[in-house]
Amino acid sequence: MIPFEEMRNLAQATPSRIVLLVMDGIGGLPHPETGKTELESAHRRNLDRVAREGICGMSHPVSPGITPGSAPGHMALFGYDPVKYQFGRGIVEALGLDIEVGPGDVVARGNFCTVDASGNITDRRAGRLATAINHELCDLMNAHVRVAGVQAGFFPGKEHRFVLRLRGKGLSDRVADTDPQREGMQPLPAKALAAEAESTAKAVRSVVKQVQSLLADRKPANMLLLRGFSRHPDYPSLRDIYRLTPACIATYPMYRGVARVVGMDILPAGETLQDEVETLKRNYKSYDYFFLHFKKTDARGEDGDFAAKVKAVEEFDAALPAILELEPDVLIVTGDHSTPAGLAMHSWHPVPVMLRAKHCRRDDVDEFTERACLRGGLGQIQAMDLMPLAMANALKLNKFGA
Amino acid sequence: MIPFEEMRNLAQATPSRIVLLVMDGIGGLPHPETGKTELESAHRRNLDRVAREGICGMSHPVSPGITPGSAPGHMALFGYDPVKYQFGRGIVEALGLDIEVGPGDVVARGNFCTVDASGNITDRRAGRLATAINHELCDLMNAHVRVAGVQAGFFPGKEHRFVLRLRGKGLSDRVADTDPQREGMQPLPAKALAAEAESTAKAVRSVVKQVQSLLADRKPANMLLLRGFSRHPDYPSLRDIYRLTPACIATYPMYRGVARVVGMDILPAGETLQDEVETLKRNYKSYDYFFLHFKKTDARGEDGDFAAKVKAVEEFDAALPAILELEPDVLIVTGDHSTPAGLAMHSWHPVPVMLRAKHCRRDDVDEFTERACLRGGLGQIQAMDLMPLAMANALKLNKFGA
Repeated sequence: MIPFEEMRNLAQATPSRIVLLVMDGIGGLPHPETGKTELESAHRRNLDRVAREGICGMSHPVSPGITPGSAPGHMALFGYDPVKYQFGRGIVEALGLDIEVGPGDVVARGNFCTVDASGNITDRRAGRLATAINHELCDLMNAHVRVAGVQAGFFPGKEHRFVLRLRGKGLSDRVADTDPQREGMQPLPAKALAAEAESTAKAVRSVVKQVQSLLADRKPANMLLLRGFSRHPDYPSLRDIYRLTPACIATYPMYRGVARVVGMDILPAGETLQDEVETLKRNYKSYDYFFLHFKKTDARGEDGDFAAKVKAVEEFDAALPAILELEPDVLIVTGDHSTPAGLAMHSWHPVPVMLRAKHCRRDDVDEFTERACLRGGLGQIQAMDLMPLAMANALKLNKFGA
Repeated sequence: MIPFEEMRNLAQATPSRIVLLVMDGIGGLPHPETGKTELESAHRRNLDRVAREGICGMSHPVSPGITPGSAPGHMALFGYDPVKYQFGRGIVEALGLDIEVGPGDVVARGNFCTVDASGNITDRRAGRLATAINHELCDLMNAHVRVAGVQAGFFPGKEHRFVLRLRGKGLSDRVADTDPQREGMQPLPAKALAAEAESTAKAVRSVVKQVQSLLADRKPANMLLLRGFSRHPDYPSLRDIYRLTPACIATYPMYRGVARVVGMDILPAGETLQDEVETLKRNYKSYDYFFLHFKKTDARGEDGDFAAKVKAVEEFDAALPAILELEPDVLIVTGDHSTPAGLAMHSWHPVPVMLRAKHCRRDDVDEFTERACLRGGLGQIQAMDLMPLAMANALKLNKFGA
């Protein structure tokens, strides 16, 4: 891909619209009994229609063999080199919880955990604490934890997860995780990874100590673990690079968080795919780029539930006609990575992709499956190249060079 | 490929095993009479079985149009960018002769040559000197050449070739070639290419002067030419990057040398493919990564002997079942470059590759040939991406990013 500085000179705002539909974790592997993948096993009337009318291929989120997390998977789909534009865990979590993170703030992802009498971790997730108790504990800490010159805020997430936000002068995110990511060990002391982080590390150690005494008599959550100290990334936005007015429609906070980093407006997406499609229809006139995220394909893949992932594909397929009715100038359907039910986790396998647009140079592929997309006109493509391709097909990119 | 620093954070040691089988120079071109390549002409029962059970593609050792030498071809297969991780000529030659090169040593490739009365080169190879005379000359020089503070060692190779090894304190490899690579000129003086190389250049000039008088009355070898001054490369090892315990099984010194540079243990490989397979079986429990090198396909290709290269493929095919019996978790079969018999040299053509593993997402390819692999699920891949792909398929790589 050409550098953003060059892209800026080529991009122009036009009335044409790009819709990116992300079926999270869509790529799969064959079921041992049928030899068919999840996509191959599903009824895909509408997906196949797009394949027939468009150009298909296989997308590599990062590079061969690399299994991406959700943040790099999506950054690539938004046109950002996922190795260059990385996120700390803390910021991903904070953005996902809609927490305001200022330019000087440092955030970390926290777990409530259980330690035994000698301080060794016995459960890194405190039995996947009830979310209500998590709220209660965060309230308690917000009421009592005090550090000189630093404002420490605790924001509850789901189950055992929370975000610690530090606000103050001269903070640094170069602080090591206190989470050893293993049970049977003591939490690690917060250590500065650079000289400029000494005072931040000291503040974190003070926070940890205070929380430890506050929680001492609680069960099962009697300690906390912190990881991924990070700042808000200051990355160029889609508006800036591509002159787009972009919007995000996602029911899960994490994806909204990543979209916010690249400057998308976050639309209230509701709870279901139906809600998301309604949001898209309602806001269709107001934006020229939409990212619509469908979580279930990934979630069912991570559950290792092949049949349920097939059903999720079919749910998406059923929702597609309402999107096609909008007649987007450029429609892309793909995933941020593969999540084969047989592996029950994100994987390194390339992801089927299709792009439909008036001038897309159709190929012979007439099915949206891993096998069929292999023979597609896009070939094997870097995920981050899809964004310029979308822009080109929307006739939003001028000629490069004289 | 993501940088090694990132890879280090993803790699984990597991009991799974990777076996890389390199059929040197395996890619070919059609025979003018049959229209079939060497691979297409061979009986390939076992190779085709692996193709059927795995995922296939075409591998580019360096980049389109670039014909690789053996060192870059193998570095790419080991996952190293062959443009970034280069070898000097001297070190390649030294490794090929199994010469011990210490961290402070400097080596150069030498030619015995013929000069006329006025010192102009009349034959850069001294009539491709008999190897026995080469040995005799090296003995002579080892007995007489003396430089203060530097130990100069001469190691005979084949015909007119030898290696000069300098051992001492403060040596530098920034010394210009004395070989003008042209006849009718005088050998060039050994010139320092950097200030820190002045004393090394002086030592080289002294060596050259002494050799010149030692050889003055000899015919046809009455002078020497030196090129490719280099040190042992200090590259990150496969242990370091991938947490592997790797072993090399190769009958030719050159390949052992390259494997040593990336930190492989060198197993005694014997003389034949049979010996190599026995070595693999004997050591199978002790390592989690094996590189097994088969030379004949390249050697017969370089001979321009199409039928003999076909036979070499069949010899390899016959040896394959014994390797398959070990049931490696990940098996890769490919070459380091193409050596079409019709060209009788290394070539730029991409190389067929196949990978077999439990979760490899099989394609429809059922033959290990250039034509069939073109349609494979790996697509056209950079050779250096095969290593992360092997790691992923061995489930030895964690997720990248949150």
